[in-house]
Amino acid sequence: MGCQKTEQLQKWIEKVSSYTEKGKVATYIPALGEADPNTLAIAIYEGPNQCFSAGNVSETFTLQSISKVLTLALALMDKGEDFVFQKVGMEPTGDPFNSISKLETSVPSKPLNPMINAGALAVTNLLPGQTNDEKLSRLIGFIQKLTGNHDITYNERVAQSEFETADLNRSLAYFMKQHGVIEGDVNELLALYTKQCAIELNCHDLAKIGWVLANKGIDPLSGEIIVPFDVARIVKTFMVTCGMYNASGEFAIKVGIPAKSGVSGGILGSVPHGMGIGIYGPALDEKGNSIAGIKLLELLAKEMKLSIF
Amino acid sequence: MGCQKTEQLQKWIEKVSSYTEKGKVATYIPALGEADPNTLAIAIYEGPNQCFSAGNVSETFTLQSISKVLTLALALMDKGEDFVFQKVGMEPTGDPFNSISKLETSVPSKPLNPMINAGALAVTNLLPGQTNDEKLSRLIGFIQKLTGNHDITYNERVAQSEFETADLNRSLAYFMKQHGVIEGDVNELLALYTKQCAIELNCHDLAKIGWVLANKGIDPLSGEIIVPFDVARIVKTFMVTCGMYNASGEFAIKVGIPAKSGVSGGILGSVPHGMGIGIYGPALDEKGNSIAGIKLLELLAKEMKLSIF
Amino acid sequence: MGCQKTEQLQKWIEKVSSYTEKGKVATYIPALGEADPNTLAIAIYEGPNQCFSAGNVSETFTLQSISKVLTLALALMDKGEDFVFQKVGMEPTGDPFNSISKLETSVPSKPLNPMINAGALAVTNLLPGQTNDEKLSRLIGFIQKLTGNHDITYNERVAQSEFETADLNRSLAYFMKQHGVIEGDVNELLALYTKQCAIELNCHDLAKIGWVLANKGIDPLSGEIIVPFDVARIVKTFMVTCGMYNASGEFAIKVGIPAKSGVSGGILGSVPHGMGIGIYGPALDEKGNSIAGIKLLELLAKEMKLSIF
Amino acid sequence: MGCQKTEQLQKWIEKVSSYTEKGKVATYIPALGEADPNTLAIAIYEGPNQCFSAGNVSETFTLQSISKVLTLALALMDKGEDFVFQKVGMEPTGDPFNSISKLETSVPSKPLNPMINAGALAVTNLLPGQTNDEKLSRLIGFIQKLTGNHDITYNERVAQSEFETADLNRSLAYFMKQHGVIEGDVNELLALYTKQCAIELNCHDLAKIGWVLANKGIDPLSGEIIVPFDVARIVKTFMVTCGMYNASGEFAIKVGIPAKSGVSGGILGSVPHGMGIGIYGPALDEKGNSIAGIKLLELLAKEMKLSIF
Repeated sequence: MGCQKTEQLQKWIEKVSSYTEKGKVATYIPALGEADPNTLAIAIYEGPNQCFSAGNVSETFTLQSISKVLTLALALMDKGEDFVFQKVGMEPTGDPFNSISKLETSVPSKPLNPMINAGALAVTNLLPGQTNDEKLSRLIGFIQKLTGNHDITYNERVAQSEFETADLNRSLAYFMKQHGVIEGDVNELLALYTKQCAIELNCHDLAKIGWVLANKGIDPLSGEIIVPFDVARIVKTFMVTCGMYNASGEFAIKVGIPAKSGVSGGILGSVPHGMGIGIYGPALDEKGNSIAGIKLLELLAKEMKLSIF
Repeated sequence: MGCQKTEQLQKWIEKVSSYTEKGKVATYIPALGEADPNTLAIAIYEGPNQCFSAGNVSETFTLQSISKVLTLALALMDKGEDFVFQKVGMEPTGDPFNSISKLETSVPSKPLNPMINAGALAVTNLLPGQTNDEKLSRLIGFIQKLTGNHDITYNERVAQSEFETADLNRSLAYFMKQHGVIEGDVNELLALYTKQCAIELNCHDLAKIGWVLANKGIDPLSGEIIVPFDVARIVKTFMVTCGMYNASGEFAIKVGIPAKSGVSGGILGSVPHGMGIGIYGPALDEKGNSIAGIKLLELLAKEMKLSIF
Repeated sequence: MGCQKTEQLQKWIEKVSSYTEKGKVATYIPALGEADPNTLAIAIYEGPNQCFSAGNVSETFTLQSISKVLTLALALMDKGEDFVFQKVGMEPTGDPFNSISKLETSVPSKPLNPMINAGALAVTNLLPGQTNDEKLSRLIGFIQKLTGNHDITYNERVAQSEFETADLNRSLAYFMKQHGVIEGDVNELLALYTKQCAIELNCHDLAKIGWVLANKGIDPLSGEIIVPFDVARIVKTFMVTCGMYNASGEFAIKVGIPAKSGVSGGILGSVPHGMGIGIYGPALDEKGNSIAGIKLLELLAKEMKLSIF
Repeated sequence: MGCQKTEQLQKWIEKVSSYTEKGKVATYIPALGEADPNTLAIAIYEGPNQCFSAGNVSETFTLQSISKVLTLALALMDKGEDFVFQKVGMEPTGDPFNSISKLETSVPSKPLNPMINAGALAVTNLLPGQTNDEKLSRLIGFIQKLTGNHDITYNERVAQSEFETADLNRSLAYFMKQHGVIEGDVNELLALYTKQCAIELNCHDLAKIGWVLANKGIDPLSGEIIVPFDVARIVKTFMVTCGMYNASGEFAIKVGIPAKSGVSGGILGSVPHGMGIGIYGPALDEKGNSIAGIKLLELLAKEMKLSIF
């Protein structure tokens, strides 16, 4: 199923596209620095025959932090709420996504939520499987099922690039290992985490994932339950309270839909009871969110009255 | 208009009432320490002739932090979004409601959001009016209009008790004055703030306020716009991201409705597009929320599928 | 007794005087902003007939933070070590002198040491006397005795200027009042504290104070014990570990003598078993220390082998 | 040369030995948990034929944090002050020795001083040599020269035990690697660091090291300059401002001599211009210092008037 280009979306893209010039592509992961900062694309699913798009929606990018939503869903499905929330909290934090201070001051020393790096590492540590290969297959299989795109895999070059420069994440992981939050070999965990972040897809795929979550975890095309109702609800909640790094509060005010961004420039949006959104715009603002992508969502939310509040 | 007692609500109250024994009434404000910890009452508005209740819903209590929602609405109505958000941020924080550390480390030094004490003081500082009397009249008038209850006023004894013991809030206020976030006389501000916190009402009144906010700011009974659409949306958003102190994230996961609690034991709930809830249960959990009140909302949210996610 | 101008000291002053251009006079206390940034003066006591000086040593300035050493001595003399150290700690801190964060995170919530503002406020709160007038008389009398200069008093204009802009100190004081570290009226305390900071003297006077402390608390001229041995030892210790704001560690390495600076540009030095130093140079470095004064002490310490280490 | 047992020292040991019961041996490094908590021994060098002792001074223990003083001396000797202090600061910190928060909040992100773990790792990273073996040989050779004891080496079992449980130090090291404070392979650094901490000696040896430092870096027995004057001065300064973990300020007040402790229970003391002290008492207080060892030093300092202040 392809998405239909619409004039309206195209106009909205043009209205905000100048914001791309005010942002910068991420460079702390070397492989991300090659993206074209002027790119802006969107796909929206609203119904079985209602997929709309604008921009180059077939261009692929890596999930980066958007993957946190998907590993959280898998961990909840496999280990259950009680177990997962022994290892990671539910509270938003005013700190940057890669901050370590709260790990030191929190009692017990567990990450505040699964959307910051520390929390995401703790969740990835819970993925089902004996080996990294098994765990990654499970995750990629889950994403293929959500998107219906069986070509999805991870980008080895990006994964390797991230693995080599992931010293801050190593620091977070060893800190948590010391405090019993994570177990096992830290470099194995980092290898898995950086591969998860390097899973590649496009706006279509993201929009489809958002649509399944919006539809309570049921694939609207096949009718299959891919994500249990409560798990879908929980991840959408985290997307609102902590999905946009430490700009989540502002995003909730100005846009008001569950969304998760990644430093690749992708944004996954999921409007409860109706709509899935995938955006790609690699020029980022200071907090690590797609600068034009956020403006596009603000416009959409206003014009289409999407806020859940 | 009175609310009708229902067996269903009474059953739900009974199901969670044992939690009151696990909590404690607030004592740091001496006058609050006199409340009966076993109390639990609820009122719900769902439609013009649909108000339901259980427990002693005519018992009054003071707003405390619930007032933060109402002063924020007034400040937004009077000064506009841009001005208000120059003085206070939009981000949730993992810190306790009375914490000062983030004021020191944030650049610029403004409170992270209007639901923590520092932020609420900054918002109260923006209330329209020349004198404290004018400002308070305006606020009480606004609450009388929202509730339709023209007897509402503040409890002088509680206000005085809070004013005398408000040294931590004085510390926050002077810190912000030093950094230009608030202006004017700090003790005047504290006098206004403690009176605002001491405004007294009952579960009926709270439920009605929640209902107006749920109904996009329009009073469903009179059809009058009491709160502009965007202001109602903004305050409901803050209620989700920061409304339940530093248990807001967990509450969003487990209940999933806009709500604001106070250390008096009150909870204001507002279910978008439909329902207003008022709860009173003065026995508090460690984070300052009504311990049985939260359990009651969890039960309601589950049974009545109220989560917005 | 007057001090003798020496060519050697004059040469050393000239060698470092260009540093005055790299510093700035304090302006956060308005009255301090009027000082001439190019000023640099020094007086040194080494023996009954050995007082040497260079620069305009009769120019007066206010003690500011240097007063912290003297109120600590008085509080120790009057209340004893055990009592004083229940209210204030003994540990250096890596934070700026006006920081509040550690008050929030320390358990119990007492200031880390008497040389940061919070700790100094807690110590001033312990000064003997029924009224502020009595307390201030006691302190000024103590300083007159130490210096032998009975004209010393405080500068009302500077005290008033500080009192009006002391909101950060008010914030610290109310925070400590909430936690039971200080008692009584905060504005009374602030009035006393700002007067103590505004006590005016010159380099001669400072050097004499340093000399008494260096001589174990005994006035070398009269033979009178002005400060008990242990109290003199304790204040000199704090001067090393915390005397130069959060540059104390670097100063201990590079100079290595007990010293206390103030934002007026004064530095009190006390070389155990021998020498008292008074310096005035109002151009400050980023941490609030006299920029040329520190360079002068570095030079002196090196040339005269003054480090105690 | 052996040390002479004295009755006076034996009496002082007996006077404080009951404090051993109030402390606990370190267990976070498993191999340290086997020490006898009741042990207390001391050796003091005062002159070529003046070495005094009490307790079992030939019992060996590992250096642990005391090694920080020796690697700092070597790094300063090899790389110079300017280079070393680009990587590590000079300021004491009120935080625990293993804290990571200040690394995140400091700008630039360098450890506050070389006596906390982060700073010591940064210094060990500067040790001269191509391989860990070379670096360790250099360090052990330096210690053999200082002590005159050529049997000194490291305890492989303790080193291995520490290496395996050093996740918090790994966290600190990776954090600093991310920020460019340290370079190279973190596990190689950890292997070197844990071996350095596991160097084994006895009270005699420690006292001799303290004596050389007290004597300005010159071995009083051979007359050889082992540590340059300025380096000896700098390390003694750090011993005063940061040598006893976050009890350094209190120790400076109550004892007042340059000293460095380790979680093995050792304390190295160096009284400028005269005396070297080695203490072993593995029962620790809450901050990680030998509980009876500190009491013994308090008694010594008082009776022998050792405070440098």
